[in-house]
Amino acid sequence: MVSIILARPDSPENIGLVARAMKNTGFTDLRLAAVKGLGGKAYKTGVHAEDILASVRLFASLEDAVADLDVVFAATARPRKNFPAMGLSEAVSKISAFPSRTRIGLLFGNERTGLTSDEMRHSNFRYAIPQASRQPSYNLGAAVLLTLYHLFTRPDSPAPGTLPRPLSRREQDEFLELLIRTLSDKGFIHKTNRRHAAEMIYDLFGRLTLTAKDRNLLLAIFYQGGAERAGSGRQIRQPGKP
Amino acid sequence: MVSIILARPDSPENIGLVARAMKNTGFTDLRLAAVKGLGGKAYKTGVHAEDILASVRLFASLEDAVADLDVVFAATARPRKNFPAMGLSEAVSKISAFPSRTRIGLLFGNERTGLTSDEMRHSNFRYAIPQASRQPSYNLGAAVLLTLYHLFTRPDSPAPGTLPRPLSRREQDEFLELLIRTLSDKGFIHKTNRRHAAEMIYDLFGRLTLTAKDRNLLLAIFYQGGAERAGSGRQIRQPGKP
Repeated sequence: MVSIILARPDSPENIGLVARAMKNTGFTDLRLAAVKGLGGKAYKTGVHAEDILASVRLFASLEDAVADLDVVFAATARPRKNFPAMGLSEAVSKISAFPSRTRIGLLFGNERTGLTSDEMRHSNFRYAIPQASRQPSYNLGAAVLLTLYHLFTRPDSPAPGTLPRPLSRREQDEFLELLIRTLSDKGFIHKTNRRHAAEMIYDLFGRLTLTAKDRNLLLAIFYQGGAERAGSGRQIRQPGKP
Repeated sequence: MVSIILARPDSPENIGLVARAMKNTGFTDLRLAAVKGLGGKAYKTGVHAEDILASVRLFASLEDAVADLDVVFAATARPRKNFPAMGLSEAVSKISAFPSRTRIGLLFGNERTGLTSDEMRHSNFRYAIPQASRQPSYNLGAAVLLTLYHLFTRPDSPAPGTLPRPLSRREQDEFLELLIRTLSDKGFIHKTNRRHAAEMIYDLFGRLTLTAKDRNLLLAIFYQGGAERAGSGRQIRQPGKP
């Protein structure tokens, strides 16, 4: 199950082109984060993709838009210090390694700005589409089309589903917020390193695509006093939650 | 060397998108057949691809636009009776099998109509891009982008240039016209079968990507009386040419 999420798209025409690319390649779930509405012009470019446009889901925030997904891949043309990117074909292989019931999100940023670092925190992995020259980058519709086409035509994975299904993005976020809060309380994260440290934590633990078991082990390690030992075979309570 | 040829494109915006896709993937030679001009709106969508748009070449006919090329691949979404199509990845493999100095043309039809059968005669091969549903087909910009991206990212061929470089399209056309004229004179091609027979001949001999040697052999076979025997080691004169 693959969902396409557009963060703050400016142009209804581009949303229509995305819908058409989805229709061409067999995807249906389109989500828009932090936009007022769809705009009638989307139907001008979304020819034969009216069903996808009619069932678009709007979310007030990107966090909400990805909350029920398990793994999010963010497309980026611009490399970021704390968010390294893999190539498109590597991303497609990685997606194929998750069990088919995994809820995958593909995240694309605004046409002019791309994804901000804050938006990238809501992804597990970043990928870049190879291009011949630094400028121009692929436009929004092109980036979506190339990604979906490669997913659509990927050969059947020889060993599909070798990776375990991770926590939902909501649960991953809650864990990371807890971790950052604790590290702030302990003085490890402070005013001067806050953004940098938080981004590194989001990147590192994002790439781990934490399962419930992983989370429990990490909680046991980080909060040895407050939680039972990992490996005891019993559910470990998450500090700060009832 | 790969050239992109658009036959009768309607929309300047689409020409701009094609130029941008070319820039993204490292191609430079854009040709327009049977259009009045470029249209200023092409620059609106062709962001950072102004150099490609500025050096666009206009041709009065498609025949002229492909005359100096060696092998032409035509993109088609709609299968035609007399012009069978291969898949995109097969087309990319086939392109890689020609020597690197071969002048390859990629031909795309009008946004609404696609390529007519008459336009397809100016291609050696047809290819279709896999899609999830019959409708909608990929739009013009999408078809160009997917084709060029696959050429740009194709792995180095293990044995590049195994196929010999063919005659130019102009020479291929002249040979086929001669053949059709002769077959008409002999009554093999007549009023009721003319279109069907001509299309089959264009398809069959197009796919052969005739070399000068092939042509000479065929001429010798078809015109045994008028030309020297094939394999004699001497250049065989083409009937009807000085």
